[in-house]
Amino acid sequence: MKLLEEKISNVGQVIGTDILKVDMFLNHQLDVALLDEMGKEFHRLFSHKSINKILTVESSGIAIAVMAAKYFNVPVVFAKKANHKNVGTELYTVKSYSFTHGKEYTMAVSKKYLSSEDNVLIIDDFLAGGNASFALLDIINQSGAKLEGIGIAIEKGFQDGGKKLRDMGIDLKSLAIVESMDEVKGITFRNDC
Amino acid sequence: MKLLEEKISNVGQVIGTDILKVDMFLNHQLDVALLDEMGKEFHRLFSHKSINKILTVESSGIAIAVMAAKYFNVPVVFAKKANHKNVGTELYTVKSYSFTHGKEYTMAVSKKYLSSEDNVLIIDDFLAGGNASFALLDIINQSGAKLEGIGIAIEKGFQDGGKKLRDMGIDLKSLAIVESMDEVKGITFRNDC
Repeated sequence: MKLLEEKISNVGQVIGTDILKVDMFLNHQLDVALLDEMGKEFHRLFSHKSINKILTVESSGIAIAVMAAKYFNVPVVFAKKANHKNVGTELYTVKSYSFTHGKEYTMAVSKKYLSSEDNVLIIDDFLAGGNASFALLDIINQSGAKLEGIGIAIEKGFQDGGKKLRDMGIDLKSLAIVESMDEVKGITFRNDC
Repeated sequence: MKLLEEKISNVGQVIGTDILKVDMFLNHQLDVALLDEMGKEFHRLFSHKSINKILTVESSGIAIAVMAAKYFNVPVVFAKKANHKNVGTELYTVKSYSFTHGKEYTMAVSKKYLSSEDNVLIIDDFLAGGNASFALLDIINQSGAKLEGIGIAIEKGFQDGGKKLRDMGIDLKSLAIVESMDEVKGITFRNDC
């Protein structure tokens, strides 16, 4: 998605060869007009699927998921990473590991909001090694819901999460795939979408 | 806001006289069409103010704030409750206490995204004792930004946060104010908006 690639190139901040900071428009401050265009693009990419629910994970996935959901006209369910005591005791849970925060956490979704009746699109802000996506897949499997696809804002193409998911036959679409990045040479995108 | 009051009455779950569970449309599963209407209503209520930024706090505030921001055509900044190591070291921080989760936490906003240039509308999902609002006010004061108002989805009118904020002269608007609630008698709303 040209608009997102340009935004990443113009204001994203590369630290070393691995860290891409986009907190100025995606992770802390939110460029809502851009998020709206991203939501529209996710709908264009997956509109041929019969999706009745969008699943994401707090916090950074919520804004994009909601914007997409508006075009699909379906509800969003966001998995809780912490403080999920107040969503009840009937939960699907899975342990995952966050490299960003260097710690293990438990992801949870209430059984009330995901079941074998659901056709689910996962939406998230980042895909690198794929830990968050695999945790969400685990929850979908526990629920018996059908996975229709995964939509990612920014994929780090030089890490293996995307390859693993595509090799499983999953319909994964990323709006921007960073092929390589470097503080001096800048960012190169893969021409995939 | 009639639509929100009806939703709360129809699907919200009262536990005892103090807990109102709305995780089926606001805190875990998100009714995006309703959120869109709420965003539109916040814009109607505050459109006479010159607002250039919406401030909320992760996670439940994000979806409502983004929907409102779409109508104001301004960015959202969401305060981080945890894991704010990755937003840099130049932060406004404040300690707050969550009654829902029974623990103290540090709320943080990067200094890059809030300054004396900003005219801010706070948006949040719940107002009870007001702890989260007072923490956000503290951050706004640290930044030198101007507070234009506070928009709340659901206010528990029988707790004192709303009164305290209104007594300070703050332009606080809540889309639904729960006057009293009871597992048997149900929910009574204050006729304020």
